[in-house]
Amino acid sequence: MAELRRDPIIGQWVLVEDDQHSLKPEDYEREDQTRTKAAVCQFCAGREDQTPPEVDAIRNDGSAPDTPGWSARVVPNRFPALRIEGELEKRGLGIYDTSNGIGAHEILIETKDHERDLADLGVDEIADVLKLYQRRSINLAKDKRFKYIMVFKNYGKSAGASVEHAHSQIIALPMVPRSVLVELEGSRNYFGFRGRCVYCDIIQQEQADRDRLVSENEFFTAFCPYVACYPFASWILPKEHEANFCTLSDEARPHLAAILKEMLKRMQTCLSDCSYNFYLHTAPLQYKDGENFHWHIEIVPQITRESGYEWGTGFYSVRTSPAVAAGYLREAQVEAYV
Amino acid sequence: MAELRRDPIIGQWVLVEDDQHSLKPEDYEREDQTRTKAAVCQFCAGREDQTPPEVDAIRNDGSAPDTPGWSARVVPNRFPALRIEGELEKRGLGIYDTSNGIGAHEILIETKDHERDLADLGVDEIADVLKLYQRRSINLAKDKRFKYIMVFKNYGKSAGASVEHAHSQIIALPMVPRSVLVELEGSRNYFGFRGRCVYCDIIQQEQADRDRLVSENEFFTAFCPYVACYPFASWILPKEHEANFCTLSDEARPHLAAILKEMLKRMQTCLSDCSYNFYLHTAPLQYKDGENFHWHIEIVPQITRESGYEWGTGFYSVRTSPAVAAGYLREAQVEAYV
Repeated sequence: MAELRRDPIIGQWVLVEDDQHSLKPEDYEREDQTRTKAAVCQFCAGREDQTPPEVDAIRNDGSAPDTPGWSARVVPNRFPALRIEGELEKRGLGIYDTSNGIGAHEILIETKDHERDLADLGVDEIADVLKLYQRRSINLAKDKRFKYIMVFKNYGKSAGASVEHAHSQIIALPMVPRSVLVELEGSRNYFGFRGRCVYCDIIQQEQADRDRLVSENEFFTAFCPYVACYPFASWILPKEHEANFCTLSDEARPHLAAILKEMLKRMQTCLSDCSYNFYLHTAPLQYKDGENFHWHIEIVPQITRESGYEWGTGFYSVRTSPAVAAGYLREAQVEAYV
Repeated sequence: MAELRRDPIIGQWVLVEDDQHSLKPEDYEREDQTRTKAAVCQFCAGREDQTPPEVDAIRNDGSAPDTPGWSARVVPNRFPALRIEGELEKRGLGIYDTSNGIGAHEILIETKDHERDLADLGVDEIADVLKLYQRRSINLAKDKRFKYIMVFKNYGKSAGASVEHAHSQIIALPMVPRSVLVELEGSRNYFGFRGRCVYCDIIQQEQADRDRLVSENEFFTAFCPYVACYPFASWILPKEHEANFCTLSDEARPHLAAILKEMLKRMQTCLSDCSYNFYLHTAPLQYKDGENFHWHIEIVPQITRESGYEWGTGFYSVRTSPAVAAGYLREAQVEAYV
């Protein structure tokens, strides 16, 4: 029989199916991810003139900006959700509050190759993508108008990707988004009550219980969280407490690249190249309560259609228990990535 | 240029496109809603023996339970998310909290006719559906294990509907779902600060501004809220302050049926029979702060694919401004429903 579980951070209750009745990977929807737009893709090498001028890139051959020779490249979004120019102006409109849409919206093209997703890249190439996440986050953080830098990736149509060439997105926001605020509030409350980081406690329990654990290496651990709103969702966290992703060391970066590649490959092997999102939750800029928060990556496969009604009802129901999902992910046949 | 708007109740910031650049109804995805399963549908009249025994129904001809003659009918869900039997048992598991999945999960079959959706029914038939929402809510509220009764509807595959015959769902929960908790907390904070119901203030401002208003009658008002996470979303609220939906009077009920039908018809005319959800947010059972909260119906068309990444980033972006959406909804050619 399904049970109700309470998220230890944000307090969300989720109905979780029991192990015996959990849905299997093949019980979820499949999606065709055939790429068809290589001939006209603006993100492919050789078409650098079709994007706005690049703001950063990995160029191991010393080639000039906006020419071929890059392995990963960051450009402003041609259709930005937010605009970089102007001063932040907040105002009231009767009982409502509004602000102009100041911010930055950048696209990180993860590879020059149209046919490969992030998970198909080598560990060193993924480490370069992570290095760009850091460099852009650190650079954008210098702008005093911004309160938060959000890094995320959409893969596949069901995950909201409108371009098929592998890419991530970096958004600088003049406020902290609600999804992060509720985590900050929850982990601050937990710290106030217990004097420990809730994420550190979760890591400790997952390492002890082991049934939801999927992989780990010297620096990182990856598991299906005890309370997830989506089936087969997984988290990657640094084992050592750290609030801010931007402090990721040169030594740890390849280990994060390896475990991220492994988790994406395990998910894609289990779930037939499903659409997915991942997002990096790090502490806000100028955040003073670093002992409370713990940066992490959340990976969410998009294999159900129920997010609409669940958003409105607030009643989440997951038909595959995290322990069963972790079992499938562990058993997926993937190479060792080092 | 798009602007950031802050939800006056829950504090969510949403990027809202300006009126000039707003997407039109035809810029969103379409979906085929052809019904194909009438021959085997368990919800059709004449197949009452294929559902669990009914718990309530509208039978104007005095016919016996579980026989034809009904116009709307409530049955337990054959595949319930929660089970009605047993005592509520909460327990801890290390740092985690869990509870058995006690609750009720009922299906309200809105019509005997396989080919009609709720919006196609007559106002009197919709009023009967609303009456069943009330009767079931009042009945389930007698069970002391339950803290909240959630009524909602999924129409179409993108909205999570797995059965094509018109139906709503009623779920009794042993806790208040998070989506309602954050509204309660936000409206309590607003009341503490201003001494007025935030929803009453919103109604007043929408009636004054008029550009987001879509329809109103003697008892109800319907508009596109100033901050919505989804394009073309709309709300229906009683004009008089009331926290609890179950107190809806016989006099007001046909007016709610009329405005609900009108809003659904306007949306479906604009957005080509799109998939949609609606959910009824009412005060929790035994709620003592009735002056703070105001029941309402939220209608959300499912016409974008972005909910996944937005859920994770907490950064919502709406490409049609509520005023522009309201304009399209107002202009949609629909009959007068009285």
